[in-house]
Amino acid sequence: MAHVHTQYTNAPYFPESSMTYLSTKVDIFHTSNYNLTPKEIQKERDASVAERLERLKKEYAEYGMRRFVEIVMVVQEHRLPHLYLLQLGTNFFKLPGGELNPGEDELEGVRRLLTTNFAPDDGSAPIDWDIVDTVGNWWRPNFDSMQYPYIQSHMTQPKEQRKLVLVQLPSSYTFHVPRNQRLVPIPLFDLVDAQQQFGPIISVMPQLLSRYTFVFR
Amino acid sequence: MAHVHTQYTNAPYFPESSMTYLSTKVDIFHTSNYNLTPKEIQKERDASVAERLERLKKEYAEYGMRRFVEIVMVVQEHRLPHLYLLQLGTNFFKLPGGELNPGEDELEGVRRLLTTNFAPDDGSAPIDWDIVDTVGNWWRPNFDSMQYPYIQSHMTQPKEQRKLVLVQLPSSYTFHVPRNQRLVPIPLFDLVDAQQQFGPIISVMPQLLSRYTFVFR
Ligand SMILES: [Zn+2]
Ligand SMILES: [Zn+2]
Ligand SMILES: [Zn+2]
Ligand SMILES: [Zn+2]
Repeated sequence: MAHVHTQYTNAPYFPESSMTYLSTKVDIFHTSNYNLTPKEIQKERDASVAERLERLKKEYAEYGMRRFVEIVMVVQEHRLPHLYLLQLGTNFFKLPGGELNPGEDELEGVRRLLTTNFAPDDGSAPIDWDIVDTVGNWWRPNFDSMQYPYIQSHMTQPKEQRKLVLVQLPSSYTFHVPRNQRLVPIPLFDLVDAQQQFGPIISVMPQLLSRYTFVFR
Repeated sequence: MAHVHTQYTNAPYFPESSMTYLSTKVDIFHTSNYNLTPKEIQKERDASVAERLERLKKEYAEYGMRRFVEIVMVVQEHRLPHLYLLQLGTNFFKLPGGELNPGEDELEGVRRLLTTNFAPDDGSAPIDWDIVDTVGNWWRPNFDSMQYPYIQSHMTQPKEQRKLVLVQLPSSYTFHVPRNQRLVPIPLFDLVDAQQQFGPIISVMPQLLSRYTFVFR
């Protein structure tokens, strides 16, 4: 977004007296460091939630628990941390991400998903994605829409794990985003108590991100 | 609580196929490994919320931002993670914790608070507390009751930082708890969506703890 913006460099977000012991540092750069460019629409694997659960059931029988990754990328505007969300239509927001393949190495899978989500389709300009941390997990105990931030019981094998993974963005990058989607930075304070708008996972991102020490770049 | 309990050792909480890359491991032991014994009542520093805010204002003028620590300890019952909370009366729960002194080293301060909270008053049986991680932070921008999981703006200096600190409990310990309080293990699933009962911080602990790989001991 084009607007007048005072340049700060390395200025601290946290007061000098802050408790930052055992707090992972994450550099966050201004949104103007990133370009967005459209690419071809990726077709959804499932046409509906019902179809998605049907496929989950079939694949669970064959491969066991599904592993789903949600990608967390933080940028700044006006010296406030913003979360990058994918917007579809006027009112639906989601984290970028996708499924790991059965047997796929976790870290390699996350890198593949980042490339599928954001790299140009011709495979040019590959980057070495810096995957920093696990932000949280949700588990789906049954073949339905309920998900929980813990494993419900040792008696029930979860059907799907959703893992939120924090990525340290490079200082600049061109995101290639399918033309039916927009990558938008949402300020953390817009997410708090906004479960109805953003759902139970995204609306708790401010709390999940509160453990990191953001360094403004 | 005395009840029949099957003994598991090192049994995994997570399915074998779980994504645990970049996930901190925390050993959690059964509540029967811990003893609770009463000690003298510690008097509160402030008689009311209004008095607490008054003292905050006075001390802020002299020392700057207050640093408050909340202590997070996880145990298991029935192979489910439980959070230790202090219960006062029939219906009020809080995390153990306290204020750091002005200029006090953060890590030393957390160790001092653990000792003040749980060690015998005579200073016997000191233990080397294992402080593992920062679970989250809340900030108080003004001298009022509002707290947020982010720093509201670079224009306002927070008046208080509340930091949640995860402690790896030893395999056994005797907690010395003031006689007006009880240390009770609450299952994580009782905390979800229980903001009215437990407040905005404790009710989000299941999500904040979902990033850890708990190993049942
Ligand atoms: Zn800007
Ligand atoms: Zn700005
Ligand atoms: Zn038990
Ligand atoms: Zn049990």
